[in-house]
Amino acid sequence: MIADNDARATANADAFGRLNAGEPVLTAVKPAGDVLPGMQPNMVLTSGWPMPWEDYSGGQRRSLVYGAIYEGLAETEDEAVDKFASGENLIGACHDHGCVGSVAGIYTASMPVFVVENKAFGNLGYCNFYEGGSPRRLNYGVYDDEVRDQLKFIEQVIAPVIASAVDKSGGIPLKPLMQRAVHMGDELHSRNTAGTILFHRELMTHLMALYAGNPDGVGEADRFLKENEYFFLRLSMAAAKCMADAARDIEHSSMMTAMTISCNGFAIRVSGLGDQWFTGPPPVVEAQLFEGYTSDDIHWIGGESHITETVGLGGFAQAAAFALQRYQGGSAEAMAATNASMYDITIGENTTFQIPFMGYRGTPTGVDIFKVLDTGITPAIDAGVAGRDGGQIGAGTLRAPIECFEGAAAAFKERYG
Amino acid sequence: MIADNDARATANADAFGRLNAGEPVLTAVKPAGDVLPGMQPNMVLTSGWPMPWEDYSGGQRRSLVYGAIYEGLAETEDEAVDKFASGENLIGACHDHGCVGSVAGIYTASMPVFVVENKAFGNLGYCNFYEGGSPRRLNYGVYDDEVRDQLKFIEQVIAPVIASAVDKSGGIPLKPLMQRAVHMGDELHSRNTAGTILFHRELMTHLMALYAGNPDGVGEADRFLKENEYFFLRLSMAAAKCMADAARDIEHSSMMTAMTISCNGFAIRVSGLGDQWFTGPPPVVEAQLFEGYTSDDIHWIGGESHITETVGLGGFAQAAAFALQRYQGGSAEAMAATNASMYDITIGENTTFQIPFMGYRGTPTGVDIFKVLDTGITPAIDAGVAGRDGGQIGAGTLRAPIECFEGAAAAFKERYG
Repeated sequence: MIADNDARATANADAFGRLNAGEPVLTAVKPAGDVLPGMQPNMVLTSGWPMPWEDYSGGQRRSLVYGAIYEGLAETEDEAVDKFASGENLIGACHDHGCVGSVAGIYTASMPVFVVENKAFGNLGYCNFYEGGSPRRLNYGVYDDEVRDQLKFIEQVIAPVIASAVDKSGGIPLKPLMQRAVHMGDELHSRNTAGTILFHRELMTHLMALYAGNPDGVGEADRFLKENEYFFLRLSMAAAKCMADAARDIEHSSMMTAMTISCNGFAIRVSGLGDQWFTGPPPVVEAQLFEGYTSDDIHWIGGESHITETVGLGGFAQAAAFALQRYQGGSAEAMAATNASMYDITIGENTTFQIPFMGYRGTPTGVDIFKVLDTGITPAIDAGVAGRDGGQIGAGTLRAPIECFEGAAAAFKERYG
Repeated sequence: MIADNDARATANADAFGRLNAGEPVLTAVKPAGDVLPGMQPNMVLTSGWPMPWEDYSGGQRRSLVYGAIYEGLAETEDEAVDKFASGENLIGACHDHGCVGSVAGIYTASMPVFVVENKAFGNLGYCNFYEGGSPRRLNYGVYDDEVRDQLKFIEQVIAPVIASAVDKSGGIPLKPLMQRAVHMGDELHSRNTAGTILFHRELMTHLMALYAGNPDGVGEADRFLKENEYFFLRLSMAAAKCMADAARDIEHSSMMTAMTISCNGFAIRVSGLGDQWFTGPPPVVEAQLFEGYTSDDIHWIGGESHITETVGLGGFAQAAAFALQRYQGGSAEAMAATNASMYDITIGENTTFQIPFMGYRGTPTGVDIFKVLDTGITPAIDAGVAGRDGGQIGAGTLRAPIECFEGAAAAFKERYG
């Protein structure tokens, strides 16, 4: 028993060390079909653990259908449904393809993705682009001409310019930008204002050179970066994904390495427990909803942006981002208290992400499932909230359900005694 | 007596209203000699109330001499001294020429200045450029080939590019940038990181267009903005100067409209008391000094950057800028407490500058000299600290001396009964 605990402590120290030591570098922007491991031309990726077609319902099911139509894999909703049901079109779980989904997390082969390499360990993480400021977006379960045109604009105008600028840069180290953004009021999940501006500034020299050669699209990319202060979220997510993946598959480690949401609930993965997802009910949410909505309108259509919380950001760095109050409600006191409580369930303190309000204390990093069970405190997650009829209807703090941790602990005990 | 207090309350509400309603817009970058009111080719401006040459001593006296040499008004230190003594070269007080000095605050006619117009009231404010990251700068009382070359680089390479970009922009409203910077961890006196990046981003479109036409200097300007995160301080100062000046000369108002430091002490101006400066001893300072320095090394050579505190920024917005701890010491708790205490000595709460940590409460704005005397609390000021032998040796929080407020109150009672 003591030996087992020793093995677990050692394994968790190792897992935390790998999580903490990640060095995410943006190396390219490429079509998902060219770079995501296992991606197929007839495949649509979505958030959540892998599920058969018939298990998808509501807004997440609609999002998959819309993804198929967007990619030209079906012309009508009925055709898309038939082709998913027959297996002619495929569904993939983002986490199994090196990426993470924001809300429904729809990826199709033509969509541009950020390619982020964890230079400390050599593994890769990916994320697609933020769609823009409208609450009506494909990843929030909405599809119409405007949504399609915006996705095409990102694919055909914005992404090529960003891709060229990233090429010129020779790779953009993201961790220094993330560290600084946390000193400038971001927690890099629901607030990415500083991250976006810092990233924009990194590109500036290259955008100037591009513009001098061929101005096509450069002004648009400059404007898109200026107008969309959530742009950096997708870089934060890709960075977090490759940082978290480097801490997977460590025998005896009880550190959580991923969280996911689908239409059927919440799930977590644990380093020492392989690919298995431990599921539970949907998260509990305290949200500030846009005018005209009530909590009855909240609808779960997926989500994996809490990969940021998995690496010590988002809800684990709330006290760095008091400006978030205006977006997701709450108070500075509550944010500081929530953030502080995350130290009770984590293995270590981040040596890069630090909270000025806490005297530059490192953010609580690396959730130990047994600490969650010992304290009854579950991870706090900053997140946008989708509505029953599609679209974003607000933002707030979610709580991971305890059932996921109970299931994981049972499996852990079964495996390691 | 009641009537007098009513008149004062009304006047202070008016003064606060004007201070709060300022709309600073950067309209141009021009040589000081072309735009500063009353500036002469043979004049050197410095911080502090107007004093005869023989009253300047130590580092501030040296700074004036260095300014004269930089401008070619003298070839040697002895010649510069003689020409100041004889009146062949002139000395001006920054505040009398529409500008404010950072530390010694040396302005000569050839130096580029930001021209900021307060669009709400039509008056102008000016400030010269940040010299760069070296602790050895003319405004910190240092002069050698490196300091001169850097000043020339700013005049000949950086300023012309910024000037062209500002021209192209048609004017850059500064208040929205300042508001946002305060939500991103700046208090816009000793921390200007977000302000600088936001300003850089505003220029980006214009820098791209300039670069495409003629790349000379544009890359250097881009790099200078990237490397010098204090760049925005001078815009914050020029903005604050024109905001504060719009609240001057309101009969019966006991609101402070300026603070200044010279080698001989501290002084304040009051709205209802015209041009008069009310002097006192040097400020009390709690500083974090660079390695190798002690408090014995601190030397007062001037300072007027606390025009930012005068308009509700700096020490009056410390709780928006916890990241400052690393630069000037202290703790988040102490910063929050200091900031909160400023509400006890101010007339109103800023409707633009808001502190997320305080639930977006407006910063305490418009110091009432009688509230200072009633509470014994004097304005808290974030500031860099100069050393006996020149150069910056640290940063900290200064406290304005109570004597200035006592003197002003006596004059106020004499004038208004």
